[in-house]
Amino acid sequence: MKNTTVTSPKGFLAAGVSCGIKISGKKDLGIICCPTGATAAAVFTTNKIVSAAVTTCKQNTKSGYAEAVVVNSGNANTCTGKLGLKNAQTMCQTAAELIDADSKNILIASTGIIGHQLPIDKVNNGIILAAANLSAGPKAGDDFAHAIMTTDTKCKQAHKSVAIGKTNITIASTTKGAGMIGPNMATTLCFITTDAAISKNLLQKALSNAIGNSLNKLTVDGHQSTNDTAIILASGLAGNKKISKADSQYKKFSTALKDLTTDLAKQMALDAEGATRMFTVQINNAASQDDAVKAARAVADYDLVKCAIHGGDPNWGRIICAVGSCGVKLNPNKLTCTIGKVTVFKNGQPVKFDLKKVSKIISQKEHTITVNLGAGKFSDFCFGCDLSKDYVTINADYHT
Amino acid sequence: MKNTTVTSPKGFLAAGVSCGIKISGKKDLGIICCPTGATAAAVFTTNKIVSAAVTTCKQNTKSGYAEAVVVNSGNANTCTGKLGLKNAQTMCQTAAELIDADSKNILIASTGIIGHQLPIDKVNNGIILAAANLSAGPKAGDDFAHAIMTTDTKCKQAHKSVAIGKTNITIASTTKGAGMIGPNMATTLCFITTDAAISKNLLQKALSNAIGNSLNKLTVDGHQSTNDTAIILASGLAGNKKISKADSQYKKFSTALKDLTTDLAKQMALDAEGATRMFTVQINNAASQDDAVKAARAVADYDLVKCAIHGGDPNWGRIICAVGSCGVKLNPNKLTCTIGKVTVFKNGQPVKFDLKKVSKIISQKEHTITVNLGAGKFSDFCFGCDLSKDYVTINADYHT
Repeated sequence: MKNTTVTSPKGFLAAGVSCGIKISGKKDLGIICCPTGATAAAVFTTNKIVSAAVTTCKQNTKSGYAEAVVVNSGNANTCTGKLGLKNAQTMCQTAAELIDADSKNILIASTGIIGHQLPIDKVNNGIILAAANLSAGPKAGDDFAHAIMTTDTKCKQAHKSVAIGKTNITIASTTKGAGMIGPNMATTLCFITTDAAISKNLLQKALSNAIGNSLNKLTVDGHQSTNDTAIILASGLAGNKKISKADSQYKKFSTALKDLTTDLAKQMALDAEGATRMFTVQINNAASQDDAVKAARAVADYDLVKCAIHGGDPNWGRIICAVGSCGVKLNPNKLTCTIGKVTVFKNGQPVKFDLKKVSKIISQKEHTITVNLGAGKFSDFCFGCDLSKDYVTINADYHT
Repeated sequence: MKNTTVTSPKGFLAAGVSCGIKISGKKDLGIICCPTGATAAAVFTTNKIVSAAVTTCKQNTKSGYAEAVVVNSGNANTCTGKLGLKNAQTMCQTAAELIDADSKNILIASTGIIGHQLPIDKVNNGIILAAANLSAGPKAGDDFAHAIMTTDTKCKQAHKSVAIGKTNITIASTTKGAGMIGPNMATTLCFITTDAAISKNLLQKALSNAIGNSLNKLTVDGHQSTNDTAIILASGLAGNKKISKADSQYKKFSTALKDLTTDLAKQMALDAEGATRMFTVQINNAASQDDAVKAARAVADYDLVKCAIHGGDPNWGRIICAVGSCGVKLNPNKLTCTIGKVTVFKNGQPVKFDLKKVSKIISQKEHTITVNLGAGKFSDFCFGCDLSKDYVTINADYHT
């Protein structure tokens, strides 16, 4: 079996175990470890209420150097006050002792229910168990990917190789998230490993650019989590000439990373809570970049649009209603909407179109809605998914 | 039977008929007529895309004088271009000829699907039929109330009498709306009749205040309609000394009107698409009025909160997550959340509470969530409702 998990880049070990945070007994604690030490970069949620894990991880990311990432699922360690912060630091310390590192070089993330204290004894036991099982094989990477899941029904992983100079480098990643996903700086939990040699600053730049144009463009329910964290660790063991300036080699790395996270964003859209299909909203001719972003999100977050897409109903009036109510500049006499390649509303006038054909387009696994605001020259896009009864079931029955 | 419909104030006739816009054969055209002429005021949607009915009605409301309101349901006459505008004017003209008025004194409203041309022949026939059936009794008022409904399962009406000086005046109203409801200037369609004598400017002031503090505080899905219109007609036939300055008599009228529209807002919340219960979000200690409004809406519009309430699950972490992500100032060390009278999160720390008791509170037909932002002295509130599978069913199956 070819290894396409987070252990596929040179220099990484991983593990994923069950330590009893999840009542189901499913895996709930994972570690990625880079024994030789890694250049590290991260982006975090901009929610004003953040997990103690985010507070701790932000602090430990500052140096740009890390030796391991420890993640638990099943409990967000958010709204947990001083005890929550102490527990987050304990996670770092426990892992640091086991892998013989400084606790400042341990990054952490938590995901799950908000407002409950971490069962820290279980977490500590989980870290001990995972550390004892650290391995470089594909099973270890898979175990880690499963250990970070919450309401995800599928494990989301992506893998890419690209030549930097004459050396092939590898990037691999896993991400989790199915609900409470709204774009802002980072979306959900995402862990990326690479064996590329790259400077700390360029690694951060490439990560921010990749997340900004992929995971941050995804909205499932417009709800920004308190725990969003994306971390990249670069072991530098591929043997490439170190990327230390924003040249063509940096660009290749940066593009590969963006393609990888875009792949993950689409996997997430299709596995969003209750989702059966995804769509891209493309906004053109906006008066400003902000307007383009705002209009794209307004359409993708509009429950009535999401319900119509779920029902395979090309109810374009709801798309126009969303655009009209979100406060962006628009020219009602130039406003145009296209679904797939079929124009359904042109220059403010309804257009006759083949209803069956457009119904078929929006019933596909993926389609694009394009809106021309007729107000300027800016464009942006957003990924969204349909809203089904299952979303309600999942979130009405989720137990506090 | 006591008349509590829009025909209960002195001087009003009404009718509601079926003219074939709705495939179901249900009533879809209504008229309220004030043969002696009425002082008129109105508020409208602030969506940038508006119905041709809104464009026309805005124009005709300017004079502050009207003789009738004509409403159709089943078709919004929105995104219908020049033909849509012509059809809206035709509605006014047809009614004007039948009741012997100037077409400028006919107010109109439309509600239903966006992007389809009005079947104007059917609408004209409906106006003719309704005009022939205008009557002052409770059945006529009820017929009108039914003719404006779309996905509403219940007819919403409210009625109030209050003494202005020594004279009793009556205010009555009917409203429609179950989905695409987000507060901004006016929510859905609302028609109010009164026999009070009051100046045009004070009538407008009282209406704006009443709607602003009731229907505008209601959010079902945060989606502002393209057709929102609230109209009040005052016949002046009660015999009270005309209210012509903002004195204690104005205040009595204004308060009665606000109580009436609050009653309607709550009826709407409980009849929202798929809703089984409603709630009030009370925000205290915000840094500004805008922040208080924003935070209240953020919680009430948060699908994950709405799903939890539907499931009777006091998942307060989602409430805090909503407040944290909406961009308002808050003090994490003072942030406090109370459900009913039970504090579940205090000064940034989780609090032990009786889960069963709070689950019972949020399973009631009505409850209040209070959040203290600890950032200032401003307060505001918002009405919301739960999100159920039925909302999705209704909006996925609504046919284009």
